[in-house]
Amino acid sequence: MNVEFVNPFVVSTINVMKTMAKTDAKPGNPFLKSDKSAKGDVTGIIGLRGVQAKGSLAITFTEPAILRIYSQMLGENAEEISDDLVDCVGEITNMICGGAKAILSEKGYKFEMAIPSMISGKNHTVSHKTNGKIVCVPFDTSDGSFFLEVCFEE
Amino acid sequence: MNVEFVNPFVVSTINVMKTMAKTDAKPGNPFLKSDKSAKGDVTGIIGLRGVQAKGSLAITFTEPAILRIYSQMLGENAEEISDDLVDCVGEITNMICGGAKAILSEKGYKFEMAIPSMISGKNHTVSHKTNGKIVCVPFDTSDGSFFLEVCFEE
Repeated sequence: MNVEFVNPFVVSTINVMKTMAKTDAKPGNPFLKSDKSAKGDVTGIIGLRGVQAKGSLAITFTEPAILRIYSQMLGENAEEISDDLVDCVGEITNMICGGAKAILSEKGYKFEMAIPSMISGKNHTVSHKTNGKIVCVPFDTSDGSFFLEVCFEE
Repeated sequence: MNVEFVNPFVVSTINVMKTMAKTDAKPGNPFLKSDKSAKGDVTGIIGLRGVQAKGSLAITFTEPAILRIYSQMLGENAEEISDDLVDCVGEITNMICGGAKAILSEKGYKFEMAIPSMISGKNHTVSHKTNGKIVCVPFDTSDGSFFLEVCFEE
């Protein structure tokens, strides 16, 4: 996988978290997802399709992290994972992917986005069916962690 | 959503189950997914992108159903949800989507597929961020049920 594909997603995640949720999301060291797997409680997934490559983006939140992010975005307290919160994860996924798409487009990589799907359920794991590499970037916030996963096949 | 989009996925699901897993998958009455939600233990999701529409396909299996389907496909007993089984769900998702894509193509609807992502975790729920309708088709097999969800935005 072209490493140029990953950074725009990291930049876009930091931007979306800062501008939409007043949240400092600090990226940790990216790792290739082979044996390590990230578990979370709510996930947004979106497919990408371009001429040069096809891919998938998943962003998996632990419950404490997303409750706080949702509260910051909506200005109302969230104490559990509600339908509105899950919908908000779909919106975040759209925004992160849209931001990355714009950066990639400037580099000459054009992608079209599919529709975000969201998963909720305690402690689930996401994986991808690809012959390409899967890069996972952990993020820390003041209230917990989330994980960004990007994979592309050329 | 154009109803013409749903039937090819149902037909393809029946075909894939019959030819690949020697399994009779009986479709139940489709319903619009608004308040009802399907829960399952392993899900395959894939994004679709075409000129006329974009969409998402999710197929959510209960554990007993997928253990049996996997055993039928691979000819070996499965007693738990393993990495190999999750990978197999990605393959099933690819095959169902590929079959539907071929039927849709004959009708003049061209779509490109993204990369399948898979989710495993007891009793999770899938939703979609769309302004279109989400059609859910329940399927029964001799060993349990699974759910096909199709949504498209034009």
